[in-house]
Amino acid sequence: MRIYDIIHKKKNAVELTEAEIRFVVDGVTRNTIPDYQISALLMAICLKGMTAAETTALTLAMAHSGDTLDLSSLPGIKVDKHSTGGVGDKTTLVVAPIVAAMGVTVAKMSGRSLGHTGGTVDKLEGIPGFNAGLTMEEFFATVRRSGICLSGQSMSLAPADKRIYALRDATATIESVPLIAASIMSKKIAAGADRILLDVKTGNGSFMKTVGEAKELARKMVTIGEGAGRKTAAFITDMSNPLGFAVGNILEIKEAVAVLRNEGPEDLRYVCLKLAAHMLHLAEKGTVEHCKTLAEEAIVSGKALEKFAEVVAAQGGDRAYIDDPDRFPTAKIVREIKAPQSGYIQAMDTEGIGITALLLGAGREKTDDKIDYTAGLVLHAKTADYLEAGQPLATLYTSDARKADAAKERFLECFAFSDTPVEKPPLIYCEITGPAAVGESKY
Amino acid sequence: MRIYDIIHKKKNAVELTEAEIRFVVDGVTRNTIPDYQISALLMAICLKGMTAAETTALTLAMAHSGDTLDLSSLPGIKVDKHSTGGVGDKTTLVVAPIVAAMGVTVAKMSGRSLGHTGGTVDKLEGIPGFNAGLTMEEFFATVRRSGICLSGQSMSLAPADKRIYALRDATATIESVPLIAASIMSKKIAAGADRILLDVKTGNGSFMKTVGEAKELARKMVTIGEGAGRKTAAFITDMSNPLGFAVGNILEIKEAVAVLRNEGPEDLRYVCLKLAAHMLHLAEKGTVEHCKTLAEEAIVSGKALEKFAEVVAAQGGDRAYIDDPDRFPTAKIVREIKAPQSGYIQAMDTEGIGITALLLGAGREKTDDKIDYTAGLVLHAKTADYLEAGQPLATLYTSDARKADAAKERFLECFAFSDTPVEKPPLIYCEITGPAAVGESKY
Repeated sequence: MRIYDIIHKKKNAVELTEAEIRFVVDGVTRNTIPDYQISALLMAICLKGMTAAETTALTLAMAHSGDTLDLSSLPGIKVDKHSTGGVGDKTTLVVAPIVAAMGVTVAKMSGRSLGHTGGTVDKLEGIPGFNAGLTMEEFFATVRRSGICLSGQSMSLAPADKRIYALRDATATIESVPLIAASIMSKKIAAGADRILLDVKTGNGSFMKTVGEAKELARKMVTIGEGAGRKTAAFITDMSNPLGFAVGNILEIKEAVAVLRNEGPEDLRYVCLKLAAHMLHLAEKGTVEHCKTLAEEAIVSGKALEKFAEVVAAQGGDRAYIDDPDRFPTAKIVREIKAPQSGYIQAMDTEGIGITALLLGAGREKTDDKIDYTAGLVLHAKTADYLEAGQPLATLYTSDARKADAAKERFLECFAFSDTPVEKPPLIYCEITGPAAVGESKY
Repeated sequence: MRIYDIIHKKKNAVELTEAEIRFVVDGVTRNTIPDYQISALLMAICLKGMTAAETTALTLAMAHSGDTLDLSSLPGIKVDKHSTGGVGDKTTLVVAPIVAAMGVTVAKMSGRSLGHTGGTVDKLEGIPGFNAGLTMEEFFATVRRSGICLSGQSMSLAPADKRIYALRDATATIESVPLIAASIMSKKIAAGADRILLDVKTGNGSFMKTVGEAKELARKMVTIGEGAGRKTAAFITDMSNPLGFAVGNILEIKEAVAVLRNEGPEDLRYVCLKLAAHMLHLAEKGTVEHCKTLAEEAIVSGKALEKFAEVVAAQGGDRAYIDDPDRFPTAKIVREIKAPQSGYIQAMDTEGIGITALLLGAGREKTDDKIDYTAGLVLHAKTADYLEAGQPLATLYTSDARKADAAKERFLECFAFSDTPVEKPPLIYCEITGPAAVGESKY
């Protein structure tokens, strides 16, 4: 088998066999295929697409290119959750404790922030002492003791995906639905959960700009998951506004804790309860309706908050910050942004808001950039809200006055105002369920 | 300017600006753009195409990426000829001496064989003593003295094309008409001739399998040449049979000499006269009709043969071999191939015949393979000829008995026979002339 012939086939839109795809992934993993041939193949895939069979074969080959987690020794059905990334998306911090509090084992690996989107691990590391870099032994021990662990990816999960992703990132081949689906699902499958719930974001703060694209990606991922024998479901949720009001690591931890205290923004609470209920349902804790009651109960009873404090402590974090979030440090520079005009907020450039947080120091442009955990912003209004000129629009937090100036300028570009009332965007568009990825419920 | 953005544009089929194309070629030449980004861009170009403006910009940028020849100090209008490559294509060996004998300066750089196609330089090196590796000074001195020089590419002409071609060869992106056109024309433009005649081969022994593809390539190249201020014309000629009967370096030299002695195969003579006449016409030696008379006169008078012997001697070769071609050594092993059945030759796999010659030792699969100058084959019949079973079909020449066996097997796969008469394929399909590459005459 020759990589040249495989590139040639794909260039001519001929379906690759499972053996050919395994040959490619093996060559990627063992470094026997040079970068320039891989990137030519990726561009051909990007422009000619992949069938469902090819996408599943690629996913499974990447999933098995390195370590895979065997969670079978842990009790019960293990359910994982994955978000395709957005601005202010702190759902894992709420959903995972709810689910664990209701007795479902949560053995979760999360990612870091890159570009305009945040990452769960960075948020958690805003808690003094918190350790996301657990060894395999520590990871399993924590799950056994607390029923939950929120770790970074310390093991070599799907190394072939890592090399392919780096090449895609350099060659403008990120925007390929089958490649995105295979990348996400390879890591999820390697991470070992029995059931997978996908939160596919759509809108100008996410990678899938339209509901149609998001549905296509969700259907592909559900098909792959089911094909790999993992019951999989997906929600298409809105990212035309940040989720909640807070964007930035400590600011988001505080907002997540607020939801767990039965306070916090309504939109965030709504999406979290939906996701948590569905995870409980996937874990066979009852009907979706019953599981929604369980999830609400976990919050109202304080059990979810207690579970969150427990896992923070189990991973070396100081739970005093969860018990009393006012202890968290505040950024040196706090700057109020006022509405530049009166009117209804017609739309927000949500990616721009993510970039504003990045400019304030909350994220990283390159993988080795340092994060300022106190940096970020809190919105005081969202799409469809009415503001008088001069009313507070947001508060920016940073440690560097020059950063505040640049961020403020970028931030104000993110808003369009209207004289006439505007409709709130929906929070959840639909649910995609397997098998065969044909089920779809409207929301 | 960022290469990422340029790849992204081309992936989305957006036309690149001249500045962007220059940025790419500069990065290719100075090695500041990594292979994997170049190959992704090449695949995107292959699948999304290039406009005429983009193709011209790419050609000119590559033409100026290294040395360029300034032929202006040489007398008269300099006309170059280029063949896209075929099997048994020894036209340069006939055409260049004819044109030089009629007083047109021929300062020509030729290529080497690779794969199933031959190269003029390798054929000439079959003449004892012949030196194709001239320095720039020797090249000019030879042209001044003899009015003709047939050199290899000793200078660094179009180095950007060289790097791009190597990547295309490894990533299945050779088959792209704009990339082929830009590759050929960049070298022709760098080589400095005022006028360019292109011999675009079509058929199963060439890279352009159909007349339509050949015309598309010819039109693109004529447009580029005219856009670069070089009057350019193209013939679409047949490569569904080898040209002439001989395939292999010394065998082809002998056949070319036969044509120059007013003997030799009719098809080869016909195509050579056509090309020579058109080169003389491009050099403003009169109407095409008049130039055809001049070309015939050059052969009949013996002037072209004398000019060929002169240039061979001028480049260190022993002209005694040209004066008496029987002096050339013959291969150790000579094997007759008989027609396996009676019938008309319906078609020939011409690429397969080129590969047969390669297997006999006449060519190279890799650039550092050694050539056996005596190896090759001579056909005794071509498409549409009738043969009784057992009549001679061809003679194979090699130095290695095992090679003869492998080659014979491959050779016999190249023929299809028919019980009913078959039409001879045309030798020349049409002529494409500039400006604007719209002129086309039927043949």
